[in-house]
Amino acid sequence: MCQLLGMNCNVPTDICFSFTGFQARGGLTDVHADGWGIAFFEGKGTRVFLDPEPSAHSPVAALVRQYPIRSRNVIAHIRKATQGVVALENTHPFMRELWGRYWIFAHNGNLLDFAPPLDGSVMPVGNTDSERAFCWLLTALRRRFGDQAPPTAELFAALTELSVDLGSRGECNFLLSNGDWLFAHCSTQLTYIVRRAPFAKAHLTDQDVTVDFSEVTTPNDRVAVIATQPLTDDEVWTPLPPGSLWWFEEGEVRASAPTVPGPGEKCRYHCGGG
Amino acid sequence: MCQLLGMNCNVPTDICFSFTGFQARGGLTDVHADGWGIAFFEGKGTRVFLDPEPSAHSPVAALVRQYPIRSRNVIAHIRKATQGVVALENTHPFMRELWGRYWIFAHNGNLLDFAPPLDGSVMPVGNTDSERAFCWLLTALRRRFGDQAPPTAELFAALTELSVDLGSRGECNFLLSNGDWLFAHCSTQLTYIVRRAPFAKAHLTDQDVTVDFSEVTTPNDRVAVIATQPLTDDEVWTPLPPGSLWWFEEGEVRASAPTVPGPGEKCRYHCGGG
Repeated sequence: MCQLLGMNCNVPTDICFSFTGFQARGGLTDVHADGWGIAFFEGKGTRVFLDPEPSAHSPVAALVRQYPIRSRNVIAHIRKATQGVVALENTHPFMRELWGRYWIFAHNGNLLDFAPPLDGSVMPVGNTDSERAFCWLLTALRRRFGDQAPPTAELFAALTELSVDLGSRGECNFLLSNGDWLFAHCSTQLTYIVRRAPFAKAHLTDQDVTVDFSEVTTPNDRVAVIATQPLTDDEVWTPLPPGSLWWFEEGEVRASAPTVPGPGEKCRYHCGGG
Repeated sequence: MCQLLGMNCNVPTDICFSFTGFQARGGLTDVHADGWGIAFFEGKGTRVFLDPEPSAHSPVAALVRQYPIRSRNVIAHIRKATQGVVALENTHPFMRELWGRYWIFAHNGNLLDFAPPLDGSVMPVGNTDSERAFCWLLTALRRRFGDQAPPTAELFAALTELSVDLGSRGECNFLLSNGDWLFAHCSTQLTYIVRRAPFAKAHLTDQDVTVDFSEVTTPNDRVAVIATQPLTDDEVWTPLPPGSLWWFEEGEVRASAPTVPGPGEKCRYHCGGG
């Protein structure tokens, strides 16, 4: 399995601290050594750094750790391959454009026999279940809403329904962002923390590194961090309940919704095939 | 105006030497200081490094210069903004997915009043004429060929026609690649060189750096380098004629075609609007 890291803030914030602990899990303190990637939104623009090499030994990861890119939405991923060979085209996060915005997606899990019909408008380049799921999501959204982006609440409702279907196909924790909001789907394992004033110190679980957030923030800053496992050992992280989709915006939770079908309830959308 | 750099090879090759000279033009030996970017294909995967800062002082450029990523197709760009503010979303090269492959595009020039109708399937994120031109090209190709990629010769013929129209709207030098081939359109200024055995030494124009290619190649290697201006001062570069599209593949020229309409001939495709 892989590990996910997301950050959503109300002001552009660098992720150097969290990434330092996270990237150590890519071959140093943990086994996720089949590549890694990180995407930063800066305004509507996106920078995606990908490396099929283990993050713990990657010169690109060293750059990201030391170069404070300030962003309001970040998604990172370290990979332990389940489906798809270790190759650049199978390295998360994936990017596509929809409605004149870049969308970034990273997935942790395993979707079994997931071969939904796609209409050709958004196609996978590699051969992971993850990228297929991303393309299927975007295709379904475009089919539902046409050529105009809906209000975020309508988008969240649609993604909740689609996540029910995805979750029924296997383990499906994912992070998705278009630079304004960040959606987190917990199928089995995701946890989060919102840091806000009064800020305190925090110590990484994976490295002996401490930061005093009060020295690097202003009183109005809010930073939500979402991760597969807690990144610090002296803060309280909140596990997301399995089977739920969460909407983060401006560094706080805007909404959440269950994605587990009720007893006897069938999926409303069909991933189809396979 | 901006500057373009492309490389197309028959074996994965690093671009460190050419990039060392090229990136110096981004604020050190020349004025192109409004951001820069470089895209590497590795198989079907793509790595895009973007920085809205001048390349001569960019830590990301320092990484690219020192980290030998081996690629068969590379496109790089340094920007002197004409349309669109200096921002990450306006930084070339641009990437979209079409027919299950990533497509990379960078442009040097200025398309006046270029506001073609787009059908929503491929939309610009920023506000440059360049990204609009890229979206217009991909939309036209998808409309013509549907959901299946055509043979490259048919694609080249279609792009030749589309380039006639683009070229009629203003200065339009561009590089385009999907990882298999690299197309270069010269509207006003592009030059190229094919390096093959017997390999010799070469000295950069912009930095006092010499490389002996015979020490870093094998006899079967072929490397085509395309640039706005020659990067070395002791090799023979061939200017592309203004108004021509060139198809590079496996490190050699496969075809070229004029993109200047004959006397009295009208453009067959219409960029529309504006």
